[in-house]
Amino acid sequence: MKIIIIGAAGVIGSAIVSALETAHEIIKVGLKSGDIQANICDPASIDEMYKKVGSFDAVICAAGDGYFGPFSDMTDENFRISIDGKLMSQVNLVLIGQKYISAKGSFTLTSGSLANDPVPFGCSVSTVNAAIDGFIRSAAIELQNGIRINAVAPGVVEAAPAYFPYFPGNIPASMHRVGQAYVKSVLGAQTGQTYPVIG
Amino acid sequence: MKIIIIGAAGVIGSAIVSALETAHEIIKVGLKSGDIQANICDPASIDEMYKKVGSFDAVICAAGDGYFGPFSDMTDENFRISIDGKLMSQVNLVLIGQKYISAKGSFTLTSGSLANDPVPFGCSVSTVNAAIDGFIRSAAIELQNGIRINAVAPGVVEAAPAYFPYFPGNIPASMHRVGQAYVKSVLGAQTGQTYPVIG
Repeated sequence: MKIIIIGAAGVIGSAIVSALETAHEIIKVGLKSGDIQANICDPASIDEMYKKVGSFDAVICAAGDGYFGPFSDMTDENFRISIDGKLMSQVNLVLIGQKYISAKGSFTLTSGSLANDPVPFGCSVSTVNAAIDGFIRSAAIELQNGIRINAVAPGVVEAAPAYFPYFPGNIPASMHRVGQAYVKSVLGAQTGQTYPVIG
Repeated sequence: MKIIIIGAAGVIGSAIVSALETAHEIIKVGLKSGDIQANICDPASIDEMYKKVGSFDAVICAAGDGYFGPFSDMTDENFRISIDGKLMSQVNLVLIGQKYISAKGSFTLTSGSLANDPVPFGCSVSTVNAAIDGFIRSAAIELQNGIRINAVAPGVVEAAPAYFPYFPGNIPASMHRVGQAYVKSVLGAQTGQTYPVIG
């Protein structure tokens, strides 16, 4: 299977690459690294990326920018960092990618445990994660040609200790568990599902 | 209690006004109607609205613009009609309103059944409704001074028959049931909850 992994060099992306690279052809995409560079906040850049890749069977997105800060001071501008950086970027990957992906292909997006299990400072990310879960549920019933879409919702993960202080009492998930959730989405047959990954 | 109702002249807003106006002071807000006019897509207009109202105990938003259309043709621009018109507008009502609302006050936003129960053409609205549910869950744990926040999630409602063809098999909710969900949010003690309203 030919699989595009966006954010392949990141903490989550590396775990996905490790889980899939032995058995599949991986196209690594990053803002400044990887086989192809793309800025997923720019629809034109997404379109160009798909044109460069040619035919493909699956897209996994593990890239996204979110804003963390106190709710009492949060502004429209702060909030839109998450809207543009994690939500619309992934939405546009699918809106545009549906024109290029092979029949029976799949999209796997990244939401997160904050959607249902919030922590202080995380409101815009909780909002965007919940939005992604709603997006994949609804996109799943309209995608044509057997194309599937799911989301993986990691909580705090072992390879990102900088986040531990923001997630008291959360057991970090192993990177193996993270990678396998994406494998389940790509190689499984379900659609419209969010797979939580917690430790 | 002094209650601001945004979208007071709309289908849902009228039901809310009927449910609350005999026992409370209602400030009706609309884009072009009501006691005060405001454009909730513009943060400056929101701020001006709150300054005009003076002190208040509750905000209910039943206004919002959403895009309906086939997923196969949907663009970033289409999708952002719902992001700006129903999500960021309501987010900004709370981000700005938290500076003005009385202690122990409440915000009640409107999401919708499409968040979890999608129909064709509704992807951007499903996404935004799910986002609102995530927003109120996370905002609830950071709001200060006993301020609460909930969402009401109507499905198709009796007074909006134009939507019936898009919701096959959905029993329209009575306008009484719709109004009472907002009453529960404002006069109850819960926070971070979404109240579904289906027939």
